[in-house]
Amino acid sequence: MSEPVIDVVGIGNALVDVISQEDEAFIASEGLRKAAMTLIDEQRAHHLHGAMGPSTEMSGGSAANTMVGIASLGGSAHYVGKVRDDQLGEIFAHDIRATGVGFSTSPASGGGATGCCLIVVTPDAQRTMNTFLGASVELTPDDLDLDLIGSAAVLYLEGYLFDPPGAQEAFRVAARAAHASGRKVALTLSDSFCVERHRDAFLELVEHDVDILFANAAEITSLYRVETFDDASQHVRGHCEVAALTRSEHGSVILAADEVHVIDAHPVEQLVDTTGAGDLYAAGFLYGYTHGHDLARCGYLGSLAATEVISHVGARPAKRLAALMR
Amino acid sequence: MSEPVIDVVGIGNALVDVISQEDEAFIASEGLRKAAMTLIDEQRAHHLHGAMGPSTEMSGGSAANTMVGIASLGGSAHYVGKVRDDQLGEIFAHDIRATGVGFSTSPASGGGATGCCLIVVTPDAQRTMNTFLGASVELTPDDLDLDLIGSAAVLYLEGYLFDPPGAQEAFRVAARAAHASGRKVALTLSDSFCVERHRDAFLELVEHDVDILFANAAEITSLYRVETFDDASQHVRGHCEVAALTRSEHGSVILAADEVHVIDAHPVEQLVDTTGAGDLYAAGFLYGYTHGHDLARCGYLGSLAATEVISHVGARPAKRLAALMR
Repeated sequence: MSEPVIDVVGIGNALVDVISQEDEAFIASEGLRKAAMTLIDEQRAHHLHGAMGPSTEMSGGSAANTMVGIASLGGSAHYVGKVRDDQLGEIFAHDIRATGVGFSTSPASGGGATGCCLIVVTPDAQRTMNTFLGASVELTPDDLDLDLIGSAAVLYLEGYLFDPPGAQEAFRVAARAAHASGRKVALTLSDSFCVERHRDAFLELVEHDVDILFANAAEITSLYRVETFDDASQHVRGHCEVAALTRSEHGSVILAADEVHVIDAHPVEQLVDTTGAGDLYAAGFLYGYTHGHDLARCGYLGSLAATEVISHVGARPAKRLAALMR
Repeated sequence: MSEPVIDVVGIGNALVDVISQEDEAFIASEGLRKAAMTLIDEQRAHHLHGAMGPSTEMSGGSAANTMVGIASLGGSAHYVGKVRDDQLGEIFAHDIRATGVGFSTSPASGGGATGCCLIVVTPDAQRTMNTFLGASVELTPDDLDLDLIGSAAVLYLEGYLFDPPGAQEAFRVAARAAHASGRKVALTLSDSFCVERHRDAFLELVEHDVDILFANAAEITSLYRVETFDDASQHVRGHCEVAALTRSEHGSVILAADEVHVIDAHPVEQLVDTTGAGDLYAAGFLYGYTHGHDLARCGYLGSLAATEVISHVGARPAKRLAALMR
């Protein structure tokens, strides 16, 4: 087994975020599921966009945000995800490459437009996400460069990938390739409703294929159908090598076979928009993990990166994280 | 002559801004003309975008920003400008309508893509603009609703419209229609290099067709080919009813036949990005003008709106200006 040449390869739904600030009444009047990710079709996307106020467009996508975070910390990352050959697809490709992340998935030349996530940010800084998957559903195992995946220390997969059927298969093929090269497989559960949609498949994956699991309290309790965070943490221990469980302002808990770390959240001066908090926590953690830091330091770096991203609008760092880390 | 039913109709190049933060070295290495607006072709736009870091996309366009500012202050505004029927065109149309500005120009179904302005913001908060006009050049007199123009108290034209040849003609037709209905015609000189490109035409317009002129110090000295702001202000007086001349942090000077007002700039807590400062000054001024305020109050409202827009990234207000005004 050769030394890895890349820190992390991430696979996910490639999306451009369309962000607007709305009041609480908007959530009710549009019937949105607050603070969750809801899948919507193109017609609903048109309606909802029409109802939203003036918006800002920024590249997003959960695993893509994580890869950008790793690059911003000074790590090496590659991303796999499907856009279309349209304007938003060009913007997505530009932005991810501009941060130094490798991105070579060929854009779809037919089918749906580049996927987008309509994000409503309320005055309490919560984000409510409404995803039109668009071209993301075109991702198949053919889009994988298995040599590249085998050359990365960690393969990172987002749970959202379980929504488009072709991507599920790519997900499994990639995980096998990573393990065949002796690499680690990391998964984020993404969203508690996503866990509900795919619970059995996730349980099987966590037991058999996942080395590093990321989840928040709602996701991990949903996965094991238990009431409390503590109950869930008893279940997950032993099922995968490392579980990094985030608890918003209460920090995070990292569980490994013979280690437990309780990590404080960083103080945040001004909480503006929680979009990307989990994605950037994973970025900081995986940067630490692939650079030989202990698990407590990995958790610290996760908190640091998450704190930067929630202090402004948008799911990607506004400052170079490597400078913050020093 | 009937009472106007709309405060302002604005005509301009419809653009989506693509904004990135870069250091001073980037301006030099890409050979950009700092703090100015430079016209670029599609090939150059591709190159420059490729060189820029990760970007944020927000609807822009000078006169469009001004109309959005008027609506944000609680005024009624309509916008005329040409996008294509593509993704960025949809975003442009959505954003301007979402702020309450009327927008009914039909998008082009062929030709260039929706125009964009690649904006590089340096640490000194200066913006350097590089415009690919795209579909903007398709604007012709056929896109004008002359009844609508005749129903607005003020017709507002951006000097940038002189770059696309068809738009120049639309510009003149619109001005005639406004005057035929007894309305006022306002013009912003937009950019000192734009003044250089079209000096003779601008001089003729200012003398014969423009009632309200907006210009900054560089633009007005370029127009009259004089050295000092004071020299320029002697020239402009008498050539049009009102001239509102902006001087960045030194505030503005308003000249009319028998009035002169020297208006202070508002204090700004944090200067982040000067994009849109002139556009929003015009918005505040015209809101005041069309709501029966005296010229000093018009200048005060211009400064207030400009100060909001330079305290954050992007050329349109992030807060509702009507609330700031109270």
